[in-house]
Amino acid sequence: MLTMQEALARLTAYWTEQGCLIVQPMNTEVGAGTLNPATFLRVLGPEPWRVVYAEPSVRPDDSRYGENPNRLQTHTQLQVILKPDPGNPQELYLGSLAALGIDVAAHDVRFVEDNWASPALGAWGLGWEVWLDGLEITQFTYFQQAGGLNLDPVSVEITYGIERIIMALQEKQHFKEIEYAPGVSYGEVFGQAEYEMSRYYLDDADIETNRRLLDLYAGEAQRMIDAGLPVPAHSYVLKCSQAFNVLDARGAVSTAERAAEFARMRRLAGEVATLWVARRGELEHPLGLVTPPAPARTPAAAQTGDRPRTLVFEIGTEELPPAELRSAREQLLRLVTEGLAGTRLEHGEIRVFGTPRRLIAVVQAVAAREEDHVRTVKGPRAGAPDKAIEGFARGHGVSREDLEIEDPGTGVPHLVLRRNEPGRAAPQVLADVLAKVVGGLRAAKNMRWNDPRLAFSRPLRWLTALWGDDVVPVTVGTLAAGRQTRLLRTAVPPVADIASAETFLETLGVNGIVADHEDRRELIAVGAQDLVYPDGTIDVRGEAALIDQITDLVEQPLPLLGTFDEGYLTLPDAVLTTVMRKHQRYLPVRDEDGKLLPMFVTVANGPVDVDLVRTGNEAVLRARYEDARFFYRADLDTPLADMRARLARLTFTDKLGSMADRAGRIGVLARLLGDRLGLGSPALDRAAELVKFDLGAQLVTEMTSLAGVMARDYALHAGESRAVAEAVFEAELPRNTGDALPRTIPGALLSLADRLDLVAGLAATVGLPTGSSDPFAVRRAVLGLLAVHRSTPEFATLSLVDALALATQPVPVPGEVLAAVGDFLAKRLEQALTEEGHPVDRVRAVLPHFARPSVADTLLAQLAGAVGDATFAAVAAAIQRARRIVPAGTTAGYDVSVLKEPAELALHDAVTAVTLPPVPDLPLFVAATAGLVDPVNRFFDDILVMAEDPGIRAARLGLLATVRDLGEGLLDWPQLRL
Amino acid sequence: MLTMQEALARLTAYWTEQGCLIVQPMNTEVGAGTLNPATFLRVLGPEPWRVVYAEPSVRPDDSRYGENPNRLQTHTQLQVILKPDPGNPQELYLGSLAALGIDVAAHDVRFVEDNWASPALGAWGLGWEVWLDGLEITQFTYFQQAGGLNLDPVSVEITYGIERIIMALQEKQHFKEIEYAPGVSYGEVFGQAEYEMSRYYLDDADIETNRRLLDLYAGEAQRMIDAGLPVPAHSYVLKCSQAFNVLDARGAVSTAERAAEFARMRRLAGEVATLWVARRGELEHPLGLVTPPAPARTPAAAQTGDRPRTLVFEIGTEELPPAELRSAREQLLRLVTEGLAGTRLEHGEIRVFGTPRRLIAVVQAVAAREEDHVRTVKGPRAGAPDKAIEGFARGHGVSREDLEIEDPGTGVPHLVLRRNEPGRAAPQVLADVLAKVVGGLRAAKNMRWNDPRLAFSRPLRWLTALWGDDVVPVTVGTLAAGRQTRLLRTAVPPVADIASAETFLETLGVNGIVADHEDRRELIAVGAQDLVYPDGTIDVRGEAALIDQITDLVEQPLPLLGTFDEGYLTLPDAVLTTVMRKHQRYLPVRDEDGKLLPMFVTVANGPVDVDLVRTGNEAVLRARYEDARFFYRADLDTPLADMRARLARLTFTDKLGSMADRAGRIGVLARLLGDRLGLGSPALDRAAELVKFDLGAQLVTEMTSLAGVMARDYALHAGESRAVAEAVFEAELPRNTGDALPRTIPGALLSLADRLDLVAGLAATVGLPTGSSDPFAVRRAVLGLLAVHRSTPEFATLSLVDALALATQPVPVPGEVLAAVGDFLAKRLEQALTEEGHPVDRVRAVLPHFARPSVADTLLAQLAGAVGDATFAAVAAAIQRARRIVPAGTTAGYDVSVLKEPAELALHDAVTAVTLPPVPDLPLFVAATAGLVDPVNRFFDDILVMAEDPGIRAARLGLLATVRDLGEGLLDWPQLRL
Repeated sequence: MLTMQEALARLTAYWTEQGCLIVQPMNTEVGAGTLNPATFLRVLGPEPWRVVYAEPSVRPDDSRYGENPNRLQTHTQLQVILKPDPGNPQELYLGSLAALGIDVAAHDVRFVEDNWASPALGAWGLGWEVWLDGLEITQFTYFQQAGGLNLDPVSVEITYGIERIIMALQEKQHFKEIEYAPGVSYGEVFGQAEYEMSRYYLDDADIETNRRLLDLYAGEAQRMIDAGLPVPAHSYVLKCSQAFNVLDARGAVSTAERAAEFARMRRLAGEVATLWVARRGELEHPLGLVTPPAPARTPAAAQTGDRPRTLVFEIGTEELPPAELRSAREQLLRLVTEGLAGTRLEHGEIRVFGTPRRLIAVVQAVAAREEDHVRTVKGPRAGAPDKAIEGFARGHGVSREDLEIEDPGTGVPHLVLRRNEPGRAAPQVLADVLAKVVGGLRAAKNMRWNDPRLAFSRPLRWLTALWGDDVVPVTVGTLAAGRQTRLLRTAVPPVADIASAETFLETLGVNGIVADHEDRRELIAVGAQDLVYPDGTIDVRGEAALIDQITDLVEQPLPLLGTFDEGYLTLPDAVLTTVMRKHQRYLPVRDEDGKLLPMFVTVANGPVDVDLVRTGNEAVLRARYEDARFFYRADLDTPLADMRARLARLTFTDKLGSMADRAGRIGVLARLLGDRLGLGSPALDRAAELVKFDLGAQLVTEMTSLAGVMARDYALHAGESRAVAEAVFEAELPRNTGDALPRTIPGALLSLADRLDLVAGLAATVGLPTGSSDPFAVRRAVLGLLAVHRSTPEFATLSLVDALALATQPVPVPGEVLAAVGDFLAKRLEQALTEEGHPVDRVRAVLPHFARPSVADTLLAQLAGAVGDATFAAVAAAIQRARRIVPAGTTAGYDVSVLKEPAELALHDAVTAVTLPPVPDLPLFVAATAGLVDPVNRFFDDILVMAEDPGIRAARLGLLATVRDLGEGLLDWPQLRL
Repeated sequence: MLTMQEALARLTAYWTEQGCLIVQPMNTEVGAGTLNPATFLRVLGPEPWRVVYAEPSVRPDDSRYGENPNRLQTHTQLQVILKPDPGNPQELYLGSLAALGIDVAAHDVRFVEDNWASPALGAWGLGWEVWLDGLEITQFTYFQQAGGLNLDPVSVEITYGIERIIMALQEKQHFKEIEYAPGVSYGEVFGQAEYEMSRYYLDDADIETNRRLLDLYAGEAQRMIDAGLPVPAHSYVLKCSQAFNVLDARGAVSTAERAAEFARMRRLAGEVATLWVARRGELEHPLGLVTPPAPARTPAAAQTGDRPRTLVFEIGTEELPPAELRSAREQLLRLVTEGLAGTRLEHGEIRVFGTPRRLIAVVQAVAAREEDHVRTVKGPRAGAPDKAIEGFARGHGVSREDLEIEDPGTGVPHLVLRRNEPGRAAPQVLADVLAKVVGGLRAAKNMRWNDPRLAFSRPLRWLTALWGDDVVPVTVGTLAAGRQTRLLRTAVPPVADIASAETFLETLGVNGIVADHEDRRELIAVGAQDLVYPDGTIDVRGEAALIDQITDLVEQPLPLLGTFDEGYLTLPDAVLTTVMRKHQRYLPVRDEDGKLLPMFVTVANGPVDVDLVRTGNEAVLRARYEDARFFYRADLDTPLADMRARLARLTFTDKLGSMADRAGRIGVLARLLGDRLGLGSPALDRAAELVKFDLGAQLVTEMTSLAGVMARDYALHAGESRAVAEAVFEAELPRNTGDALPRTIPGALLSLADRLDLVAGLAATVGLPTGSSDPFAVRRAVLGLLAVHRSTPEFATLSLVDALALATQPVPVPGEVLAAVGDFLAKRLEQALTEEGHPVDRVRAVLPHFARPSVADTLLAQLAGAVGDATFAAVAAAIQRARRIVPAGTTAGYDVSVLKEPAELALHDAVTAVTLPPVPDLPLFVAATAGLVDPVNRFFDDILVMAEDPGIRAARLGLLATVRDLGEGLLDWPQLRL
C-alpha cells in the first residue's frame, strides 16, 4: 500500500525530475501553499521558477476535533509551480498521477472548471479542480494576477490535496485511518494535534489576544513595506491572515470587519508584490529571464485538386467550462460565417460542434479557389493634367494606354485602371480567415498562458485544419495547424492523423469522441434512464440544466449508476440533491412517487474501469453526506434561539447592522403589514421571531443555497407548527427567477418584508444597482417583491411603495430614494411583463400600477380580453379624443350654467351619470363609461370647443377634461395602440 | 555534484529505510528542529518514535545580511529522532553519511564531546558534535530530559547542518555558492530573503511590537495550558521563543530580562511537557509502548588450564569526553584493584589503558583458582542449651559431632563449625568482580541509554573479557562479554577476535589502536614537531593541556599539517589561537621568534586520505577565520564610544544596573584609588572612560574569552596611547588562576576596581557564594583582588577592606557585609598562601594582614628567613611569654611609680627604648625589640607577676601587656609554631 509519506516523496521526486526545486513549507501558519513566498512572490516578475513543496495548510474554520472523517484543520498540500506554463502542464500532471501508481486510463480523471481568486491577496487565476472518480484531488490554476499585478509570464499552479488522494487510494473512510507510514496511521501521528488545534480554533483561542496580534502583525507588515523589505513584510501579511482566520473560526468577525480586514490585507499584499518586483529588478533578476516562445512559422500551402471540398477546422483547447463552451460554439459559427463572407470563396453549409477539449467548424463544399475578380482602381478626373495621369499610371506600373475612362455615375468621368485579380487558392484564403477566427474568440473571463498573442477562457493547444486532403496553413501565435488531432488523453496513441476533412468527424467518432452536444446529451439522458429502469426515474426535464452541463463536461459520455447507504436518506431531500447536483453533478434518482432512492447517476468521460469509478464516486458521495450529517446533527442539537442568536455575529452591512438586526426588522415589518392588511396570525408572529434563524446553522453556513429549506426542517424538528415552519421557509422564496413562491400568508408577508427591508436599506445606503454590479442582488429582490405581490391576491390593495415607506431602517430613507425605488420597481415590472410576452403598449398602459403589480396583472388580462371589443374601442377612442384636445394643465370641472348647446348638455348629463368602479377593473369601467361614447362623438361633431368667448371655452374644455379624467388612474391611455 | 536538495532527499530516504516517519517542518519559526513537536513532545513518555524531517532553523542573532560566508539567519537542519536508542545509532549515522556519498574511511569522522542543554526548554542531553575533517556537521545527542522531565526511554537526536555539509562536499567558500538544485545556486534562491530577514532582525524589527507579541504569546500559552491543551500551548511557547530571539538580535534584552524570559519559557515548557505526558496516558499511548531490552544471559564459564594467566577486560564505549576518560581510567584501576582484593585470587600487576572508545584493564598472572579456604562459623556458647546447639548444627546441615569448641579470645568459648571452602575458578570469580566494576563506573555527568540498568558518561556497547584463552562470562545489563573487540569503525572488518588475553594489546596495536595514553601523546607531540620542522615549532609545554585533550580524542593519532592564508595573520594573535585551540583543537605553529606561522597541526584518527582531510580542515579554519574577520572588521569600523554605549543594553544584574553602569563605577573607583595612592595619570583617566568597552564588540560577543585582548587591540587601532590600551587590557587580568597580572599601574587599578565593584555589589545583593554555586565567579574575583594587590608593590599600603568601602554601589553596602567580605578575603588568602606551599602556622600568623596581602607576602618571606634565627626566636618567645600570662582584656600601660624591683625597672627601660618600624617588617621589628629579650626573661625569673598587692599586680600586668602589644598588628603570634 502506498503510504502517505511515500506518496509525498514520489510526487516530490517526480516534479524534481521535471526540473522543480524543492523548498520547505513556510515557517509560519498559512492557509494554503499559495501563500508560501515560493509561490506568492515567485510568480511575480519575469524570472523563471519551478518548484515543488509540501505545505501543511491550516484552515481554522475546518476544525472538527478530528471527528469529521474528511475535514481537518490542517491538511497537507503538495504545491507545484511551473513558470512559465510549459505548454503541456496537464500532461505533466497526469504523469504525476501515474507516478503515484494511479492508472489514469482506468479512472475517470476530469478537469472541472474551478476558478480561483483570493480577494485578500489581490490574486486570481482560471483553471480546474481535477476530479478522480468524482473526488476533487487537485486544484489546477493558471495564475493571472497576484498582489494586484498582472502576471507575465503566467504560472501554472498545481495543488494536490494529499489526504484526500491517499484516502481514495487506500480506500479509507476516515482520515485517521490513512496509513501514514508503514504500520503507522495518520490518526496515531496527528490525531491529538487535530483535536487540540480544533479546540484552540473553535473554543479556546483568546479573541482579544488574536485581535491584538492581528493589529500588531499588520503594523509590522506596513513598517517593513515602508522599509522596502518585501520578504519580512510578506511573512507578516501571512501572520495577519492566520490571526484573522483564527478570529473567524471563533466567530468573532463581522461582515464589515471581514471586508475591512480583506481590504487591509489586499493593500498590504499589493504593496509587498510591487516591492518584490522592484527589488528583483534592482537585483537584476538573479534567476534570469523567461524566453518567450517563438511564433509558429507559416508553412507553404499546398493544394491538391480543384473540386469543392469540405473544410474542417478544429481548435484544440484545455477543458472549457460548459458555459464558455456554449458561447464558444456560437462565436465560432458567427466568426466562420463572417469570415467566409469576407472572401470570394463559395461554400455550402457551416456547422459547428464542441466538446470540452475542442471547437469544430465544418463547412461543406468549399470551392478550391476564389472566383476571379476585376478590381477597378479610380484614377484622376478625365482631363486632369497629364502629369497627374502619368503619375497614376506609373504608380500602378502600367502605361497610360492601359487606363480606361469611366463615369462612376456622378457625371464626372474619371480615368480608371481595371485589374484582373485571379482568385486565391482555398487553403490560402482559409488560412487567413481561420487565423482571425482563433484571434476573435473571447470568453466571459479570459486568461493568458504561454502564448503571449492569445487570450481565451482556457489555453488553446492545437489546431487541425483541413480543406479536403490539404492542410490549411493556419498559424496563430505559437500554434500552426496540422492534420493531427488529439483524442482522449487516455487513448493509445492519444493522437490521430486525419486523412481528409471529410473523414474528420468519423475519425473522432471511431475514437469515441462525440463531437455533437445533442448527441452527447441524448446518450446521457437515455443512458441514465436505462440504468435506473425499472426501479427509478430520472427527471430529465427537471434536470435539463444539469444534464446540459454534464453534456459539456465530457467528450465520450459513459453514464454509471452508483448507490449510497440508505441511512443517508434521513437527511433532508434538499441536502441530498444539493450535494448531488451542485457539488458532484450527479443525477438524483427517484421512485414513481418522487421519493429519492439511494442511488445516483454520474457520467464518466471515456472508457474507464466501471467498477473502480463507481466505487470512487460512491466514496466521494459518502464523504460528502457524512460531512452534511455531521453538520445536520450538530444543528439539530442546537436550539433555534441559539442559532438565531448567532446572527448577531454576522454583519449585514456596516450601516445596516447585523443579520440579527435585519431579521428583527423583517419580523417587525411583516407583522405591521399583516396588521394593515388584516392578515396577522399567531403563526406569523412566531415565524417573525424566527425568520432567517437558519443562517446561524452550520449546514447552511456550508451550503448557503439551503437557507429556508433547513429553517423549515429545523423548525419542525424543534416542535414548531407546520405553519410556522412553512413561513420561515417561504420567507426565502423566491430564491431565483422561476423559483416557487410563498403559498401561505405568513410566508408571503415575511418574503415581502425581507425584500422590502433589503431594498429600502441598500437604496438608502449603497444606492440602487446601476451597471452589472449588484453584489447584494437588489435586482433579484425587487423581482421577488413583484412576484410575491402578483401571486398573492390578498396583497392586491397593498402598494409596494407605501410598504417600502414602512420599512424602517437604521438610517433615514429620504423621499427621493423612495421615488427612485419606485422607478426601479416600475422598470423591473415592465421588463418582467414584457418578457412574459405581453405587448409592450399594454404593459406600458398598465405600468402606473407598478406599486400594485397584481392590479397590473388583472388589467393586462382584461386588456387582452378587451382587444377587439367594440365598446372598449369606442370608450378608449372617446377618452383619447378628449385627452388630445384638452391642453395639459387643464383641470376637470366646469360652470354648467355656461353650457347651452344640446350636445354640451347631453355630454354633461352622460358624464354626470357615470359611476366608476371602486377598484381598477376594465370591464366595469367600460360598462360604466359606455354611455359616454355617443355624447362625446356628438359633442365633437356639433361643438367648436375653442369658442371665442373665454368663459364658454373654459367650460367646454373643463367638460372634456372631466371625460379625460375618468380614465386616469386606470390606464396610461396614450400608450395603448389600439 | 550532489545538490543540496538531493542531499536532503537522500538523507530522508535513508532514515525512512531505518523506519523513520517523515513529517513537515514546524509551521512557526523555530530556532532548531528540536523545538518541533515531533521532537520536543515526542521524546516524552513511553511511546516509540522514529522520525526524520527538515527544519529551516531561524537564528536571528546569526543574521549577517548574507555577507558572511558561513552564517545565516535561517539554515536548514535535518533532524532525526530514534526512540528508543537502537543500540547502534552511531553506526546508523555513519551509514547516512555513506548515503550522501561520503567515504567515511577516507575522511576523518569524529565524535567530539558536546553536551546540549536548553535552559529555556528545561532540556538537556549528552553527546557529540560530529566532525568531518574538523568541520562540525552534526549534533548527536542522547536526550535525557525535556520540559524538566526525565526521559525514559532515552531518545537519540541527530541534527545535520545541511548547508555546512554541502559546502564541504561541494567545496564552496560561501553558502550562496552552494548548488541548491541542478544549475541553481543557494544564493539565487535564498539570497534575497537572507538579506531582508537580516535587515529585519538586526535593524528594522520593531522592538515594542515584538515585546508585546512576546507577552501575548506567553499569555496564550498559559491559557492553553490551563485549558489542558499541550499542542497549541507548545506552539505559543515556540512563538515566545522566536519573539525573544528577535528582541535579542535587536539588542533589546538585558541580562535580567533574559533570565526572566528563560524562566518563564522554562516554566511554560515544563507545564506543556507534563500535560503532554498526561494526555498521552489518557489516550492510552496511541503509538504503543517501548519494549525494554532483555538483560543478557550469563553463559556458562569454561575454564581451560590451571596456570596463572593474564586477565584482560575491555569496556567498549561510545566516544568518551577526554576529562571523563581520564577519570574513568583512574576509577577502573581502583575498582579492579578493590574488586580483586575482595577475592582470594592471586594476581600480578594491574594496569589500565583507555582510548575514547575503550577502557582496558590488564592484570598479570591471575591465578587459575582462588586458594581453598577454611571458613569458621560461630555457633552458640559452649554449654548453651542442647536445643540451641542442635538447631545450629541442623541449620548448617551438619550433625552436632561436626562442631568444635573455640575460644575467640573473650574467655567465653563457643561451638564453631569449620568449613573447607574450595576456591572458585578464575573466570567465575572474575565475572563477578568485573560486573561490579562496570556497574561502579561513574562520570561527572552521567546519562542513560537503551540499557536501563546502566548509567555513565556515554553508552557502554560491548565487553571483552578474557582470562588467558577463556572468556570471562561477565554480564551487565544487556551486555555479555565475549572474545571479540571492536576496532576503528573504518577497519575491515571492524571487529577482531582475540585469541587470548596475552595477545589482546598486540591485536589492538596491529590494528592501529594505541591503547596507552602516553604512547599516543608521544606520537602526537613528536609527530607534530616533525611536521613543522624546520620552519616552525610547537610549544609542546605551553600546549600541554591541549595535547592531552587531543590525545584522548583519538585511538590512532595521525598528525597532519595544514596551512591557512597569510592574510589572516593580520587578525590578532589571540583571535587566531583561540579559534585553533578552543574551537578546532589545532596546535598553533610559531617561528623561532614566537610569531605565528600560517599553519596548524591537527590530529586525525586512524588511516585517512591525508590530502582530503587536510583540505577539509583548512576549509574549516578558513571559514572560522572569515567569520572572525567579519566581526573584527565590523568592530574596527565602530567607534570605541559606540561600543561602550552598547553596554547600556547589557544588564549586569537586576539591582546592580547595566554593564555600562558597572563600567562607570569601575572607572570612578579606579580613579579614586589612584588619587588616594597618588597613582593617578591621564592614561588612567582615559582608560577609566573606556574600561570594558569591548564587551560591546561583536568579536567579543562571539568569543567572550577575548575580552580585554580585543579592547587593547581596538584601542590601539582607534589611536589610543599604548598605556591606555594596556590598561583596558589589564583591567581584565587575571582571567583565571595562573593568568598574567597587570603590569601597569592604571591596569592594576582598573583590575582592582573591577573586582572590588563586583564583590561589593554582589555581596550586598545576592550574597557571597557558599556552596559550589558561584554564578558570578565571586571567588575568582576575590582571588584576583588578592593577586593584583600582591603583585603591585605600589598597593602595599592600600587596604582592600578600605578600598571595598569606597566601591559605591547602587544599593547600600552595610558594615556587616563588608565584614563578611573581609572574612571571605582572609579565607581565600589563607587558602592561596597555603596552596603556594607556605606552612599553615606562618600563613595564619600573617593573616591579620589579609587586607594588605602584599604585606602578608613580605612578612611570610621574612618569616621564612627568620626561622632558625635565634634573635627572632628569642623575641617571639619573649612576646609569647608576655601574652600567655596577661589575662585577656588587660590593657597596656602602667603606673611606673609602683615599679620598684630592678627587673621591673629594667624591663620598663627596655620597653620605653623600643621604637617600632613604621611598616610591618619583621627584621626591623626584631632589631627594634631584640633589647627586650633579656629584660623579659629577667622579669619572669625575678618577679612574681601575681603580687598580692593589687596595685603592684596591675602595674606588672600592664607592663607585660605593653610588651605583648608591641607584637600586635605584626603577626598573630599564637599561630606560630616555632
